[in-house]
Amino acid sequence: MSLPVNYGEAVLLLDEERKKSFLFVLREGGEIGTHKGRLLHKDIVGKKEGSLVLSSTGARFRIFRPSIVDKMMKVQRKTQIVYPKDASWLILALDIRPGMRIIEIGTGSGAFTMLLAQLVGKEGRIYTFDRREDFLENARQNIRRAGLEDRVVFSLLNAGDLFPVNNVDAVFLDLPEPWLAISPSWDALLPGRPLATIVPTAEQLKRTVESLIENGFLVMDVVEILERRILVRKKEGVRPFEKMVGFTGYLISSRKIIEE
Amino acid sequence: MSLPVNYGEAVLLLDEERKKSFLFVLREGGEIGTHKGRLLHKDIVGKKEGSLVLSSTGARFRIFRPSIVDKMMKVQRKTQIVYPKDASWLILALDIRPGMRIIEIGTGSGAFTMLLAQLVGKEGRIYTFDRREDFLENARQNIRRAGLEDRVVFSLLNAGDLFPVNNVDAVFLDLPEPWLAISPSWDALLPGRPLATIVPTAEQLKRTVESLIENGFLVMDVVEILERRILVRKKEGVRPFEKMVGFTGYLISSRKIIEE
Amino acid sequence: MSLPVNYGEAVLLLDEERKKSFLFVLREGGEIGTHKGRLLHKDIVGKKEGSLVLSSTGARFRIFRPSIVDKMMKVQRKTQIVYPKDASWLILALDIRPGMRIIEIGTGSGAFTMLLAQLVGKEGRIYTFDRREDFLENARQNIRRAGLEDRVVFSLLNAGDLFPVNNVDAVFLDLPEPWLAISPSWDALLPGRPLATIVPTAEQLKRTVESLIENGFLVMDVVEILERRILVRKKEGVRPFEKMVGFTGYLISSRKIIEE
Amino acid sequence: MSLPVNYGEAVLLLDEERKKSFLFVLREGGEIGTHKGRLLHKDIVGKKEGSLVLSSTGARFRIFRPSIVDKMMKVQRKTQIVYPKDASWLILALDIRPGMRIIEIGTGSGAFTMLLAQLVGKEGRIYTFDRREDFLENARQNIRRAGLEDRVVFSLLNAGDLFPVNNVDAVFLDLPEPWLAISPSWDALLPGRPLATIVPTAEQLKRTVESLIENGFLVMDVVEILERRILVRKKEGVRPFEKMVGFTGYLISSRKIIEE
Repeated sequence: MSLPVNYGEAVLLLDEERKKSFLFVLREGGEIGTHKGRLLHKDIVGKKEGSLVLSSTGARFRIFRPSIVDKMMKVQRKTQIVYPKDASWLILALDIRPGMRIIEIGTGSGAFTMLLAQLVGKEGRIYTFDRREDFLENARQNIRRAGLEDRVVFSLLNAGDLFPVNNVDAVFLDLPEPWLAISPSWDALLPGRPLATIVPTAEQLKRTVESLIENGFLVMDVVEILERRILVRKKEGVRPFEKMVGFTGYLISSRKIIEE
Repeated sequence: MSLPVNYGEAVLLLDEERKKSFLFVLREGGEIGTHKGRLLHKDIVGKKEGSLVLSSTGARFRIFRPSIVDKMMKVQRKTQIVYPKDASWLILALDIRPGMRIIEIGTGSGAFTMLLAQLVGKEGRIYTFDRREDFLENARQNIRRAGLEDRVVFSLLNAGDLFPVNNVDAVFLDLPEPWLAISPSWDALLPGRPLATIVPTAEQLKRTVESLIENGFLVMDVVEILERRILVRKKEGVRPFEKMVGFTGYLISSRKIIEE
Repeated sequence: MSLPVNYGEAVLLLDEERKKSFLFVLREGGEIGTHKGRLLHKDIVGKKEGSLVLSSTGARFRIFRPSIVDKMMKVQRKTQIVYPKDASWLILALDIRPGMRIIEIGTGSGAFTMLLAQLVGKEGRIYTFDRREDFLENARQNIRRAGLEDRVVFSLLNAGDLFPVNNVDAVFLDLPEPWLAISPSWDALLPGRPLATIVPTAEQLKRTVESLIENGFLVMDVVEILERRILVRKKEGVRPFEKMVGFTGYLISSRKIIEE
Repeated sequence: MSLPVNYGEAVLLLDEERKKSFLFVLREGGEIGTHKGRLLHKDIVGKKEGSLVLSSTGARFRIFRPSIVDKMMKVQRKTQIVYPKDASWLILALDIRPGMRIIEIGTGSGAFTMLLAQLVGKEGRIYTFDRREDFLENARQNIRRAGLEDRVVFSLLNAGDLFPVNNVDAVFLDLPEPWLAISPSWDALLPGRPLATIVPTAEQLKRTVESLIENGFLVMDVVEILERRILVRKKEGVRPFEKMVGFTGYLISSRKIIEE
C-alpha cells in the first residue's frame, strides 16, 4: 500500500526549512550532495515517504516520491518549460480524461508532455513532435526517468507538416509560430475537440487567434495566469511574497468547428 | 469515433458571438429557449460536435458535448463552487493520477468532485463528504448528470469526525473550518501524500497553516491565482478585459510527514 | 483654520456604511435626495467637516469638503476619465511641482486636468486642448465647480496641429492617436522634460513607443497599474474584494532628448 | 528658461540602452565611474538636459536634472523606502495641495518626505518625525541634496507621543506599529482631513483599521498596488516583464470625523 523507497526508484529529498529539493534515483553505493551536507543512498532506502533523514552535517531532510510537479520542475532543460501555473490551466482547457489520445507539437524538454502522460494513464497516448532530434532525445530521457515512457510516442516533425496521426481528442501547440500548425491540427482533431496553445507576446497572440478563426476553430478563452505566492509565518504574519513571476505567456483555448 | 449527438445525451449549445451557453439533455419533443430564440431538440440530434444550428430567430449556435469545465460551471449551485482557475491549480497540488482514491471534505455543489472523478477515471474512487444531506443530494444529481456517478461515493460527515476510509492518495478540504479536518486527514492519508485546501481570508489561512504544521504536515505552497482574460479583436486590438475576478481564495498544498 | 461649511461651497455627503457619496453645492432652500432619504442644505450649513448628519429616514451621513479624488470621480462625464490609480502614477511620471506650466492634449471630461491644476497651484498653468468644443465646455464647467478655473486655459486643437504654447515643463497626451501629437510635443517641451501618455491596447502601445523613439524621446517606463481593494472586516477577516477593475490602459513615460 | 547644467547642481547620468543611472553633484575636477567607463564632470557642465555625452569607452549617456522619482530612488537608504507605485497612490489619498502643512511619522530614509516636500511647495511645511536620530540625520542629508530642506522640519519623536504641531492638513504614518500614532494623529489633524498609512501584513492591516475606527476615523479605502512593467521591443513585441515586484504593502486611507 505504501512501500518504503527502494533502489532503482526516483526520490525527492526536501530541505524541511528552505524547501530546496533534490530529485535522484537511488543506487547502491550512491551518495547525494546538498547545500547542507551529504547523504548516502543506503540511509534513505527502506524509509517510507515523509520520513526524516539527516545529512552529514545534521541538517533535516524529508524523503518523498516525486509528485508530477516535482518531476516537471526537475527535467533536464534544453528549452523553457511550460510552468505549472500555466500547465494546470491548459489541462482543463484540453479537457483531459484517462484513455485519451493527444497530440503535442513542440516537445521541448518534455515537462508538459509528462503531465499529459500522467493524466491520460496507461491506456492513453501522447503523440509528441519536435523539429529537433536533440530536444526529442532529451525529452525522451526525462520522460523515461519519470516512468511514463510507455504512453508517449516521440517523432520528428517540421512546423507546417501534416501530422501522422488523427482522430485525436486534443492538440497542444507550443512552438514559436503556432499558426503554422493550426490547419494540420484541424485535420487531426475529432470534431468539437479542443486545441490549446501558449504564446509569448501580444502580436503572436493576435496572429494565432486570427489563424484559429480562419482555420475552423472557435476561440473559447484567452487568459494569462498570475500566481502569487503567500508568506505565512507566525512572526511576520500573512502577506504576498516580495518577488513574483510577472509573466510567462498568453494561453489560448479553442474548439474545432465543422461546416456540415 | 465521433458519433453525432443523440437523445439522452447532454449537449452544450453555444452562442457563437457572445459565448453564452446552455447545457441540457436531449429529449424527444424537447425544446430549448435562449436569449436569441428557441431550438427544437430534434433539430440538434444527429449533428456532429462543432456543427452549426440556427435558432428560431436565425441566430447562430454551435453544438458541443460539454467539457469538464462546462459541466463544472453549469452545476446546480447550492454553494459557492471551486472556480476552474483554482481547481486546476489544486489538481496539480493533489498530484492526481488515474486509479487514485481521493477524499474530499465539503462536497458542496459537487463541481470540484466532478473534476476529480473525471481525472481518476473508472478505476479511481472519490469519497466525498458533506455535513448537509441536501448538499449531498444536489451534488449527487449534478454528478449523475455529468455521467460520473460510478466512481463517486457520497456520505454524511461532520467536521471533526474520523473519516470512514483510509490509505487514500490525496485529501481535499473545502469547509469553513478546515483545521477541524486536518488530524483525521493525517490518519486517512498514505505517508508522503498531499492534502490541499482553499480558504477565504488571511486569518483562516494562518490558522490552517498552523494547524497543518502541528498535525504532521509539511506546507509546500500557499498561493492565490489571478486569471486575467484578454480581449483579442481585429479592430480593438489586444488588451486585458476591463473587469476581472479579484479574489476567490487562498490555496494551500501540503504533504503528510511521519516520524519514524 | 477649519471653517464650517457654508452656502456656495461644494460638499461631499458620505453614507457612513456603504461609502456611497453625493457631491453638490450648498444652496439656500436646497435639498439633496439619497438612496436613504433626503437632507435639507440648511441642516448641513454650519457643520464642520467630519460631522454627522441624519437623513429624513434617520440614516447616518458624514459631511466633508471634497478631496481632489472625490472631485475627479464626480465630474460630469462625456468621456472615459483617467482613473485615480493611473492618474497618480502619471503625476510622478510628469514630475509635477507647484508653479509648473503643463500641456494636456485631450481634455476629455477634465478629471485629470483638475488634478494637474490642483498640484501646480495658483502660480502654475495647465494648457488643455481638445478637438471638440462640447468636451471643452463640459470640462470647463467641471473645473469651475472644482474651484480651479483660475489656472486652466482651454483651447480647441486638432490632433497633429502645432501647440500654441511652448517651453512647457511637461506634456500629457490622452487621445486615440497619441503619435499624431508627439512631434508637436517635442517642439513645446523644455529639454529633458517628460511626456507621458495612456493607451488602451498593445498595438497602440507599440506604435506610440516607436513614434516616441523616432521623434526625439527616451522611453523611460511602460507599465500598467492594478489596484486591488482589500476588505477588512472584524467578522469576515482580511481578503481582497471579489471583483476588481481588470484593466484601464498602458501608461508610458518618456523624456525629451536633444542632439547638440 | 532651460539653463545648461552647472557646477554645484545634481545631475542624472543615464545609460541610454540599459536605463542604468547615476545621480551626483557636479564638482570642479570631479569624475564619475560607471559600468561603461568614466566621465569628467567638466565634460558635462554646460550641456543642456537631454544631451548626449560619451564615456571614456565611448558608451552613450544622457544628462538630465533628476526628477523627483530619480531622487527618491537614489536616496542613501538606511531603511526600506516607500516605492513610487505606493507613494503616488498615497499622494492622492492625502489630498496634497501646494501650501499644505503635513505630518509624517517615520521619516525613514526620507524618500517619501522628499515627494511631499516637492508637492507642498515653498509655502508648505512637512513636519517629519522619527524615533532614531541616525535616520533623521541621514534623511536630512538626502533632502538637502534634493534641494528641499527649506520646507521640511525634522524632529525626534517616540511612537505614542503627542505631536508638537497641530491643525495640519494631512498625516502619513510609516512605522511598525501605526496604531500607536493614531490617537495623536486625530488630535493634530483638522476635521475631515486625511490620514494614510502603509503596513506590511494582513494582521497589521486589521489591527490598524480597527484602531482607526476606534479613534475617530472613517476608513475610506484599503488597497494594494501592483505595477506591471511592460516590455515593448520591435523584435520581441509587447509583453509584460518576466519578473515583477509581488508586494510592498497594504495602503490605507481614512478621514478624521468628529462628534458634534
